[in-house]
This record gives sequence, structure tokens and C-alpha cells, in this order.
Amino acid sequence: VSRVLVTGATGFIGRHVPALLEGRDVVAVGSREADLLAPGEAERLIDEVRPTHLLHLAWYAEHGRFWSSPRNADWAEATIRLVRAFRAAGGERAVLAGTCAEYAWDRDEPSHETRTPLVPSTYYGACKHATRLVCEGLGGSFAWGRVFLLFGPHEHPDRLVASVARRLLAGERAPTTAATQVRDLLHVQDVARAFVALLDSDVQGPVNVASGDGRPLRDVLGALAAATGREDLLEVGALPQRPGEPEVLVADATRLREEVGFAPARTLEAGLAETVAWWREQAATVDAR
Amino acid sequence: VSRVLVTGATGFIGRHVPALLEGRDVVAVGSREADLLAPGEAERLIDEVRPTHLLHLAWYAEHGRFWSSPRNADWAEATIRLVRAFRAAGGERAVLAGTCAEYAWDRDEPSHETRTPLVPSTYYGACKHATRLVCEGLGGSFAWGRVFLLFGPHEHPDRLVASVARRLLAGERAPTTAATQVRDLLHVQDVARAFVALLDSDVQGPVNVASGDGRPLRDVLGALAAATGREDLLEVGALPQRPGEPEVLVADATRLREEVGFAPARTLEAGLAETVAWWREQAATVDAR
Repeated sequence: VSRVLVTGATGFIGRHVPALLEGRDVVAVGSREADLLAPGEAERLIDEVRPTHLLHLAWYAEHGRFWSSPRNADWAEATIRLVRAFRAAGGERAVLAGTCAEYAWDRDEPSHETRTPLVPSTYYGACKHATRLVCEGLGGSFAWGRVFLLFGPHEHPDRLVASVARRLLAGERAPTTAATQVRDLLHVQDVARAFVALLDSDVQGPVNVASGDGRPLRDVLGALAAATGREDLLEVGALPQRPGEPEVLVADATRLREEVGFAPARTLEAGLAETVAWWREQAATVDAR
Repeated sequence: VSRVLVTGATGFIGRHVPALLEGRDVVAVGSREADLLAPGEAERLIDEVRPTHLLHLAWYAEHGRFWSSPRNADWAEATIRLVRAFRAAGGERAVLAGTCAEYAWDRDEPSHETRTPLVPSTYYGACKHATRLVCEGLGGSFAWGRVFLLFGPHEHPDRLVASVARRLLAGERAPTTAATQVRDLLHVQDVARAFVALLDSDVQGPVNVASGDGRPLRDVLGALAAATGREDLLEVGALPQRPGEPEVLVADATRLREEVGFAPARTLEAGLAETVAWWREQAATVDAR
């Protein structure tokens, strides 16, 4: 009999997971149910739940701060403790969330799981990379989903897709940079589906969780504006370029597609339209209060 | 006022350190004084000692097992906790022991701190690399000494230099492989001196702790045999080559020499002669019992 423990179950990705696992024996915990940073808590949780499968999505993710926060070290440590306890208790398969920030960001080709050098530019990326190195080597069935850019309902309102959608829906001007960077975006619900597919597969090691389809951000913003019907308010190029960002950040998604057998359920345009609909509903709910 | 906390102080390298720090405020702990793997122990130790300087040498090092043991994960976790507690308590400078096993082992050039890719072939190397990534990013003055091959008194009797020395001193034949691999060896007392020099410098980041002088192992064995006076018993090439070993494992020691200002106190030949003298004494002590 299998039993799945999901951490980060109230987070941006994790909130979609329990529904995708319906009908199975699932224990889904957010920070209210389990403070994994507290001493002994990871061990206690494993001992209580005795999971055969672990989908560990919890990590520090505060917008604007997570890139360089020392709290990444706390999560690296807590994750090592969690996976170690999971293995000690006979856990079968662990799937953890990694990041595109583990890769060197100075390449023009799509990032590949084994061919692209792992030279993180950020502390977040360094701690994720470190965590994978330690946890993967503990043995047992193990996969590591490297998440690229994602968007969708419940996104932090200051992040790119959310903030532009909200402005346009509010009838406000949305000035952006030239947005020539090429990015790989996936709707958060598809990211959650990919993690469940990864959990159900026996693919080992790192797997990019991404569309594999790089688009200049200006095109993404154009599609987003079209979904709101307010293309007139989008002002691409009105803000100066931000330094230090990689020009191209796109996944080679071959492993996810061919080995895991995953395909996104929606196109980028459909995902953006869904997201706009969700933000429209949010605004209506606020208005109606 | 500065106060130094030394961990691993009863280990192969660490046992030489307290004497090198004589006259300073030093707390040196081995596993008997502090079990850093026990929950809360790293934090308690920092709270008790309140060090301004940390020289962390403790790690799992059981001969033949440390390369792939899951205990490397325990030490990665404990080290993160120790350095985090050290930083939280206002610690100034931390120096930790890394390893040549962090580097990719398929290169023919000397391993360089920043130019050689960090692609560990072993779990030991992976956990050390992971630990550096997490601990260095916690901020503060930080150096990471990557130890290459070492030898000297108190070496595990089954390791290469020790085992060949003991056999020859006992008048036994010492068959070895062709030993064509090129290696970088440093006497353990010089390794300890290098760590103290690193602690006293303000050099930041990874620094190779090595001679920078690559020698075919057969030449090292020849010098060792000469020091015993029993070259007749050394049978280089009598055993088959072992697979999976890198041909060349040599450090670029420029940073250690020029930035830290360190030079070994003895040549390889002198270090081997000292080591032979120590083993001879050990054998005499055993005989006299």
C-alpha cells in the first residue's frame, strides 16, 4: 500500500497537488501542520505519517527575498533531515523541487539536466543544488524536478504576469522593460501535474519541469494583454532594462516529455487566459465586498 | 579578543592544530568533547565557546567507507548547523576543510579553485561541495581549504604510504600496482600548518591545500622505500591496476602560496623519512611491550 506525503501543500504549486492525488492515501502538510525548520519536526512527521512516497515542495519563497536569503540554508538543512528520515523509515520514492537557478545562466542553448554546468548565480540556486547533491546520494528512488518560470492563480501580485494582468484589468497603464529576454513559462497547474507524473514514474535524477518552448517575454506580455482586451495599456519598452538577468532561460524538456511522458494540458495562451480570468474574479470578489 | 574553536581536534589533521595555535585562546574539541551530529549540539557548543574564529575539520573519515557513506549527509547537515550558529553568534572568520574530490576528476591539468568544474565523482565529494555552497553563502569571512592527498604519523595503517612503510619496516615484500598515477601529496603536519595560515589570513573562498607538485606514485613509493632502506622489498607493478582512479590528481597551489603566503616546511622526501621514522618508533614500542 502506498501513502504519499506532500509538503508545501499550501504553496503556489503545492495547493494544486492534493486534488491531483484524489482517491489515494495522501497526507498534505503546509507550514501550519508542520514547521519543518523546527528541530526534530521532520523526523516526527515521517514517524507519524510513515510515507512510502514523498513529494517535497516546501521551501522559503518570499517574493524578492528568496534569491539571497540565509533562510535558504535552513531549508537545505531541513530538507536533508526530512529525506534522511524518509529513507531511514523505508520510504520508497522521493520527488523534490529544484530550480532552473541551479544552472549556469550564461548559456544560449536550452538548459539540459546533465549537459549544462551547475554553476548557480544565486544563493537560492546554490542551496537547491547542494540539497540535491546530498539527498540524491542517500540512495533509493529519487527524482528532482527543476522548475523554470511559472505563473497562474495565487501568484504573488507583484510578480510579472500577475502584476501586469492586475494593472490591465484595473484599466491602468502597464509600463514594462523591452522584455526581450527569452523565457520558458508553464502554468502552475501544469507544474503540479508534472510533479505528480514524476512521482508516478520511476525516472531517476534531475528532470526539467518546463514547457521547453522559449518565448521572448514581450510576446508573453502581448498574449497576456490580448487576454485582458486592453492591449492599448501595455507599454513595452517604457522602463529601462534590468541588469544581471540572463538573456535566455529555457529548458530542454525532452526528459519530462519522453521519459516521464508528460505534456502540458494547456498552451501558454490558454494558461494566460485562465490566469486573467482568475484575477478578474479576484477583483470582482474584492469589489463586491 | 579572538577565540578559536577547532573541531576534529583528535583527527588526522586536527591533532596537529592545537600546538600550532599555542599561546592563543583556543578551544579544541574532538568527538568525545562534542558530538556535533547530536541535535542541538552544534548550537550548544557555539553558545558555550562564543568563538570569533572557527576551524572546522570534523567530518566522517572511516577508511574505505567514507567515499560513499550516507554519514556524509549527517556531516553536511551538522556543518551547516554549526556555521549558521557561528554566524548567528557574531563569529568573524570560518575556515572549513574541503576536498580535491569536489573537482571533476577527468582533467589532465592541475585542479584550480575556480576554473576546474566542480563535478564530484563520489558522495563524499558531493557532500563537501554541497556544504561549501550553503556555508559560504551565509556571509562573513570564509575560506574553504580543499585537501589533496596527505600522509604522516597516525595515518590509517591500511592507507598507501602507511601500509607500504609498515611492510618494508617489517621486512615483508610490498607488492603494489604500476602506480603510474600522478598525485599531489603533503605531509599532514604541513596540511595543519596550511589551515592555520588560512585561518590567520583574510583570503576568501576555496583554496587548494596541497604541494602543487605532482609526482607519479611509483616515485613516491621509491622515495618511501629508500627511507626504509628496503628498496629490495618494493615490488612496483606486481598488482593489477585498479579501475576508476583518475590518472592525474594535482592541485594548482598558486592561491595557497601567493595569497595565503604558505610554503611547506619539508620536502616530500623529508616528510616521507619523518613518517618512516614514526612508524619505526611505533613498531619498536609494540615490540617492547
